[in-house]
Amino acid sequence: MGRRPFLPVTLDREKATSLQAQLAMGLRQRIQAGALAAGSQLPSSRELARDLGVSRNTVVAAYDQLLGEGYLETRLRSGIFVSESLRDRGSLRPVALDRNKKLRAAPPERLQAPQPLRPSQPDVGLFPLALWNRLRNRVLKRHGSGLLHYQSKFVLGLAPLRQALAEYLLESRGVRCDWNQIAITGGSQHALYLLATLLLQPGDTVAVEDPGYVAARQAFLRSGAKLRAMPVDDQGLVVPSPGKSPRAADQVKLIYTTPSRHFPTGATMPVARRMALLETAARDGSWVIEDDYDSEFRYAQTPLPSLHGLDSHRRVIYVASMSKVLFPSLRIGYVVLPPELIEPFAELRATVDDHGPLIDQATLGEFVASGEFYRHIRRCRKVYASRLETFLESADEEQLPLTFPFTDGGMNQAGFFVDSTLNDLAAEQRLEQAGITAPALSRFAMRATRPGLLFGFTAFIGTTLRSTIRRIASVLRSTCE
Amino acid sequence: MGRRPFLPVTLDREKATSLQAQLAMGLRQRIQAGALAAGSQLPSSRELARDLGVSRNTVVAAYDQLLGEGYLETRLRSGIFVSESLRDRGSLRPVALDRNKKLRAAPPERLQAPQPLRPSQPDVGLFPLALWNRLRNRVLKRHGSGLLHYQSKFVLGLAPLRQALAEYLLESRGVRCDWNQIAITGGSQHALYLLATLLLQPGDTVAVEDPGYVAARQAFLRSGAKLRAMPVDDQGLVVPSPGKSPRAADQVKLIYTTPSRHFPTGATMPVARRMALLETAARDGSWVIEDDYDSEFRYAQTPLPSLHGLDSHRRVIYVASMSKVLFPSLRIGYVVLPPELIEPFAELRATVDDHGPLIDQATLGEFVASGEFYRHIRRCRKVYASRLETFLESADEEQLPLTFPFTDGGMNQAGFFVDSTLNDLAAEQRLEQAGITAPALSRFAMRATRPGLLFGFTAFIGTTLRSTIRRIASVLRSTCE
Repeated sequence: MGRRPFLPVTLDREKATSLQAQLAMGLRQRIQAGALAAGSQLPSSRELARDLGVSRNTVVAAYDQLLGEGYLETRLRSGIFVSESLRDRGSLRPVALDRNKKLRAAPPERLQAPQPLRPSQPDVGLFPLALWNRLRNRVLKRHGSGLLHYQSKFVLGLAPLRQALAEYLLESRGVRCDWNQIAITGGSQHALYLLATLLLQPGDTVAVEDPGYVAARQAFLRSGAKLRAMPVDDQGLVVPSPGKSPRAADQVKLIYTTPSRHFPTGATMPVARRMALLETAARDGSWVIEDDYDSEFRYAQTPLPSLHGLDSHRRVIYVASMSKVLFPSLRIGYVVLPPELIEPFAELRATVDDHGPLIDQATLGEFVASGEFYRHIRRCRKVYASRLETFLESADEEQLPLTFPFTDGGMNQAGFFVDSTLNDLAAEQRLEQAGITAPALSRFAMRATRPGLLFGFTAFIGTTLRSTIRRIASVLRSTCE
Repeated sequence: MGRRPFLPVTLDREKATSLQAQLAMGLRQRIQAGALAAGSQLPSSRELARDLGVSRNTVVAAYDQLLGEGYLETRLRSGIFVSESLRDRGSLRPVALDRNKKLRAAPPERLQAPQPLRPSQPDVGLFPLALWNRLRNRVLKRHGSGLLHYQSKFVLGLAPLRQALAEYLLESRGVRCDWNQIAITGGSQHALYLLATLLLQPGDTVAVEDPGYVAARQAFLRSGAKLRAMPVDDQGLVVPSPGKSPRAADQVKLIYTTPSRHFPTGATMPVARRMALLETAARDGSWVIEDDYDSEFRYAQTPLPSLHGLDSHRRVIYVASMSKVLFPSLRIGYVVLPPELIEPFAELRATVDDHGPLIDQATLGEFVASGEFYRHIRRCRKVYASRLETFLESADEEQLPLTFPFTDGGMNQAGFFVDSTLNDLAAEQRLEQAGITAPALSRFAMRATRPGLLFGFTAFIGTTLRSTIRRIASVLRSTCE
């Protein structure tokens, strides 16, 4: 009875954690800290229960837990001991002992609306979120918990969504494909990355527009490809003349292009050049990725049909996204694959991340099939057209020192500095300091390019556009002087 | 007046497509088909309007569209012509002319519940979907349209979710980390793929459990790594004895393990072996990926603390998923990164697919922070524990020709054939023909392994479990005879 009470841990009945778990944790930590050495005997469950003033079951359960974890071991007829196997484990240091030290708190969540005039941002306030949520409830009701399961056969996306998109693409973009050629991805960047991984070997050459879309280049570089900068004029990508047949070393494996509206200059590729591009690709056996990132937003006319629709050689892979048409945080894009790439793409996708979230896909399928998708696009088109007008009028009134190449729509307007010796990165920086986002055109260029800025006008109402352009004028005046 | 009416297209006022778009499409197709040759003149807009019985504005708009696309060109004072630039474009073949041919219809959507006894499937019927939807509405209300924007700074996930997970991990898994070490991914496969891409160079050696999780191996192989099969016993991964220092060529870059519950055998790694593993990793400079895929589901005791919590060398990268705890089609997983990998991981993620869907992340953050996550886990634990009991009882009653190694929980139960000469793939196939899923253990093995089957019990109610096991018994009897 001379035994000193063994109190390995202070138990707190107020805590959410059970007494048993508190006791196990306390013992574990003392063993980790070396306070209970390997080979030392623990009191019997009866004794410890008395010492701690808890039921014997609590102690038995805690001992059982630590026996299972290997911290303790029983020796026949002599009791419970700290495991001999832990002797000389130098690294059995206390790692997580100081539980009172608070975790570093996350900063308050600050979800930000895009800063004016950030390019390529839709006005998400136009999105019919309440309607979307109703459609979401409708598909959840229709499928019960079926939509919550893993669906291995839908690694490329839900069939009804793919079917609805196939019809939309035929009607609106001149893309003719079977629904099963469509693969749903987590946005167009995901599609570009998967295609790069699928099609490119280290050392392969990819022809990219210069200036052009930087994130696509990053995806190609990740696969070890070499980039070939292709010039761009007011008809978009300049296609090399078909006369000379390329040497093997010059062979282009992949051409990345934005024919309907070149990014960032906004130029549209006319049909003759499209045909030349398709001929070049067919002759050289190159793949063509058509990134159709915002061609829905053509304001004066109906959108230009896709390059894909002209391609009789099946070299064109069509990529698009819902980020700009619906809302960016949805993270849904898609790709139209040539039939021979469907299987390998699905296989790759299964290894990279498997299928995407299904409730959103089912909701989107309903949104497209119900016609709400088209209605939303028409609504956006009207609003964005008037914002482009406001932007250009205002830029004219404020006499911005830029010329604006014609673009037939889209979400962005490029402006070239009248003074072509100007450093556009410096201008960008000055604007950023004034709280205005307008990336320098040289950011998108691999070689020296005409200096300018890229403006997004779609996410901002008229008064914001006007006041921002007034401030841009004043910042640029002080920069140019 | 002797001019024959020019009717390039039959216009249909009933169609949803505008007359202008129908006309433009008709003309475009005739040019593509060669029916309107390069250089040939078109009627004036006035004439064509009269021929077609439409307003002149309609024709002007269609002509404008095709001028913009480069199909037509104007010649000063002489009219509108099919572009000379299209002459000799042999490939200007009609691709999408036959618009009457229907697109191949998608099959009716069949969302499937998992077939008994498919492993690793949660019972999604237990998921409180209505509550989840209420929390979703709550976060949407709180943030307005802020949740719809692209949020470049959240490439690793929303801060409040990461913070809630950091607290959960400390409390429940013994993982101590700062919230900003947590990266949200599109499921654990996505996490494994990103880690493989980040950490492995072609030719690197990855030590994997054999038998073990196949999809993880696929991710490592994608990076060009060599796999080293590590044996597994009833304490999980067998750690090589620390005596011999490895030659450079034998250096293991990465160890992939499932210590809390080995997949697929269910063995738990005791603490002494965990320490040995951590020492080996520290000595060799190997990374350790701890895949903690279903350790929440420990039925008799509280879940075993993670390997991560014992690691004072910061070599362990912790990976987990919501697919099994909540529902698979949510596609959310996460990884706890050592501080030095946070930046490179974010950079890679930005190139692969950028951040995941934000509304779901915000909802999940709310689900965890509100305590509903813990409540849901407790509810599942109870139900699954009783299903495991039913499974084992029933397997005993039906005298399945298998022995079941002890596992302290989880979602699956492995069974080894008593007759160790049996071909488990043949048994798997016979069962599949009977509508029963039970993967052969040799599917998970790189070298010859003890034959057996893997059964999932969590997604199926008691009567289903009993009747399925009865059928399994009958199939296996006829197989073994």
